[in-house]
Amino acid sequence: MYFCTKLSVLFMGKLVIVGTMAFDAIETPFGKTDKILGGAATYIGLAASHFKVDTAAVSVVGGDFPQEYLDLLSKRNINLDGVKIVKDGKTFFWSGRYHNDMNSRDTLVTELNTLADFNPVVSEDYRDASVVMLGNLHPIVQSSVLDQMTKKPDLVILDTMNFWMDTALEDLHKVIKRVDVITINDEEARQLTGEYSLVVAARKIQEMGPKYVVIKKGEHGALLFNDDNVFYAPALPLEEVFDPTGAGDTFAGGFAGYIAGTNDSSFENMKNAIIYGSTLASFCVEKFGTERMVNLSGDEVHKRLLEFKQLTQFEIELG
Amino acid sequence: MYFCTKLSVLFMGKLVIVGTMAFDAIETPFGKTDKILGGAATYIGLAASHFKVDTAAVSVVGGDFPQEYLDLLSKRNINLDGVKIVKDGKTFFWSGRYHNDMNSRDTLVTELNTLADFNPVVSEDYRDASVVMLGNLHPIVQSSVLDQMTKKPDLVILDTMNFWMDTALEDLHKVIKRVDVITINDEEARQLTGEYSLVVAARKIQEMGPKYVVIKKGEHGALLFNDDNVFYAPALPLEEVFDPTGAGDTFAGGFAGYIAGTNDSSFENMKNAIIYGSTLASFCVEKFGTERMVNLSGDEVHKRLLEFKQLTQFEIELG
Repeated sequence: MYFCTKLSVLFMGKLVIVGTMAFDAIETPFGKTDKILGGAATYIGLAASHFKVDTAAVSVVGGDFPQEYLDLLSKRNINLDGVKIVKDGKTFFWSGRYHNDMNSRDTLVTELNTLADFNPVVSEDYRDASVVMLGNLHPIVQSSVLDQMTKKPDLVILDTMNFWMDTALEDLHKVIKRVDVITINDEEARQLTGEYSLVVAARKIQEMGPKYVVIKKGEHGALLFNDDNVFYAPALPLEEVFDPTGAGDTFAGGFAGYIAGTNDSSFENMKNAIIYGSTLASFCVEKFGTERMVNLSGDEVHKRLLEFKQLTQFEIELG
Repeated sequence: MYFCTKLSVLFMGKLVIVGTMAFDAIETPFGKTDKILGGAATYIGLAASHFKVDTAAVSVVGGDFPQEYLDLLSKRNINLDGVKIVKDGKTFFWSGRYHNDMNSRDTLVTELNTLADFNPVVSEDYRDASVVMLGNLHPIVQSSVLDQMTKKPDLVILDTMNFWMDTALEDLHKVIKRVDVITINDEEARQLTGEYSLVVAARKIQEMGPKYVVIKKGEHGALLFNDDNVFYAPALPLEEVFDPTGAGDTFAGGFAGYIAGTNDSSFENMKNAIIYGSTLASFCVEKFGTERMVNLSGDEVHKRLLEFKQLTQFEIELG
């Protein structure tokens, strides 16, 4: 794939992804699914697999989790040594129904199952990873992963949600203090800081620890803040959003994968990471669940990156 | 100013602006104003005055409209021959209150006054203008301006709002058919077409006549559609929006002024026009009414354009 050609053949960043692997059952105005493959680690891993990265997933599933799903991830070169299979347990199950505008949804079912006792263990080989992506989980669980790292990662990225602000705010603050990048949606940024202005909210979150704040605005794109620097990536305008499930995780996975693959966490390179994340997320929403991501080719990604350039780049010459 | 240096000294596009000149009284969470200078033609004219353009405003005011306001516009080289002063009439008055999120507002007072009988007359000297900007008015009034042009303008830009969709849809369709560019906000685009997807809505609007559709999304920026081409400009993320009044008109004025000043209505040049429009609008919202626009310098605009570049431009090299 093109976007690997600039990397040294010898260098391969190590990326640890921690998050759920799940069954999802999804209803949208376009239809509904039975239990299909889902989970934050799944989406993050599939996105990150587009980069030259040595990736390991850390998660937990039940004995009901099909070998076929595990094979699918293994084939994308995702190391699964850290995925615990609880033979007599059941896999985390989530079911939700999207409203007509696709911007909001109701959760119909949440069965934690094996996730309730999830105690992530990073395998020895990955405790020196350069990039750690903490998918949305209880903040104490997220923290426990950082405790296991034998060397300080170059970059720790954390995703979280309003549920933890409501139920475990103190623990959330503790883990937020330990990360470099936080990805959070606009409403959650407002809830976390009590500020309506996203510029002010981002500054307040930076004061909590993370030097970089990524605010996800769904169909309105994403903003990256670092000190006085701001970068904005739109979402690609689509004829229709078929299923938004996993878009945020796919975005985060593209971001993390690109950073790990290029071994460069400068602000300028993070801009590119944001664009890759947005590009990959624009595919994710085109079909149900992981369907689009599983078969996504590098050529398709390349072509859409060109569309992103045309969408956003202009030629005003300024002195 | 820098952004004039690329223009031929001999060429000066002619721009006709039709729209309201008004008194506004505004309440926001930050405070309230007495009657201050407002109106679409005012904001459009102030924005367009940043370009090397021979601009004329066509409007109507009452005898109560201060000479000071007219002088302010004249000083920005806006020709006011087409502004009718009804000595014994009163100027159009609008009063509104913004909600805390600044994205919605209640209209408190609308006194049409002299606007009720507004019959715009473009002065002879401007009937051959290259660009016509039809500010938000009754579609029949907008049409009557086009009837007066002695040569087909290179570009006709129309702004409208949901009120005319509710009350004069047939007339609106008639004038829409005659224009090249329509500027409309996201909710209005959805109302006009019955489509939720802005991509689909933009295509349907193009089928109504305008080759170019600009969809304004407020704090989420603006989209430009033309055939299969799409361009997206974000709004500059601001610490606070002090008063959104006039932002849409300022955007349109920057767009129209840039096109008229460069005499180039290609899609690539329209991208730049969108960026100028967004840049100027980002100033407009920083103070009440026209306060920020009246004293805005070319250097300030230039500096903010650089911020826009940093905000949106990235360096992924693609084959």
